[in-house]
Amino acid sequence: MAAPIDFYFDFSSPYGYFASEKIDALAAKYGRDVTWRPYLLGVVFKTTGSAPLTSIPIKGAYHLRDMVRTAKYLGVPYRHPSPFPISPVTPSRAFYWMDAKDPRRAKEIAHALYRAYFVESLDISSVDNTVVVCEKLGLKGEEVRAALSDPALKDRLRVEVEKAMARGAFGSPYIIIDGEPFWGTDRFDQIEKWLATGGW
Amino acid sequence: MAAPIDFYFDFSSPYGYFASEKIDALAAKYGRDVTWRPYLLGVVFKTTGSAPLTSIPIKGAYHLRDMVRTAKYLGVPYRHPSPFPISPVTPSRAFYWMDAKDPRRAKEIAHALYRAYFVESLDISSVDNTVVVCEKLGLKGEEVRAALSDPALKDRLRVEVEKAMARGAFGSPYIIIDGEPFWGTDRFDQIEKWLATGGW
Repeated sequence: MAAPIDFYFDFSSPYGYFASEKIDALAAKYGRDVTWRPYLLGVVFKTTGSAPLTSIPIKGAYHLRDMVRTAKYLGVPYRHPSPFPISPVTPSRAFYWMDAKDPRRAKEIAHALYRAYFVESLDISSVDNTVVVCEKLGLKGEEVRAALSDPALKDRLRVEVEKAMARGAFGSPYIIIDGEPFWGTDRFDQIEKWLATGGW
Repeated sequence: MAAPIDFYFDFSSPYGYFASEKIDALAAKYGRDVTWRPYLLGVVFKTTGSAPLTSIPIKGAYHLRDMVRTAKYLGVPYRHPSPFPISPVTPSRAFYWMDAKDPRRAKEIAHALYRAYFVESLDISSVDNTVVVCEKLGLKGEEVRAALSDPALKDRLRVEVEKAMARGAFGSPYIIIDGEPFWGTDRFDQIEKWLATGGW
């Protein structure tokens, strides 16, 4: 089996959420697994001089409209959340806590957190809310809560952000296939052709 | 016939060039004309705090790669030009000079200028080079040169940039269909569905 695809995303990114609903099925069609890697776009923005999309004059208004339109176009349930954006630190830590034990289960947590935020407007930056989402998946709340304040898990996330940046990731979704980077849900057409043909 | 589509672009934008090679045929498929409107992204960037793509740390390297890859994906001839970016003022003025007389001929000038820059690396920010491109289309060089320094034409471009910004344009290509804005060559799939269905 060919090497897994790397999927970098931020838990506060609508386009990352759209990609999360599509990437595994697309990869599976071409016999590929996907390694999910949440990271913190806010850290990257310090280098690229960027800012949360909706806070940018003129461009922000466009993106609020594009997010809703693109969700419908892709057939992904979406209600623009409030507050927006939020810190992705807590959900990212919850992901990496499970990822170390069971990567498949970690994806279930990521799906549940993303949907809680982008469909139900649940503020997953809060530890309490992230714990509730994990409990609904059958996990023990006290265990999740203890893990989220574990210094080793904080270090893990820091290292993952550094690794993502070292690989050139600067957006969400940012997808790497055999060394070739693709930024955005709107590169899924090129991603599919790349997977089918091996590049051009 | 339904209202024309508005196509805003910058003569220094590779993605604007890609769109210029596709937009008229796509619109015609759905019985639509396209009104071309070159403008100056540099002016908009003062408001949005943006910068020429390839000058942005990390993101710049990605876009250099994406431009070449996207050109091949779309089947559009492309050689990344040097110098890049350039001022789009002179080619924009050449366009509006002809647009006032013959909008169809103005599109021919735009195609020729875009291709001269993005295929042959001819620096179309220079008056001399823009005149040469126009001469190849059978226009009189002296007439083009005189027009390019006409204050009325300078005013026309300034007004068009203001109009574009008033309509929310902040990128290239920026396409408006019956009031609905689409930014990027990577929205052509949504543009086609919008033209076919009238929106969703």
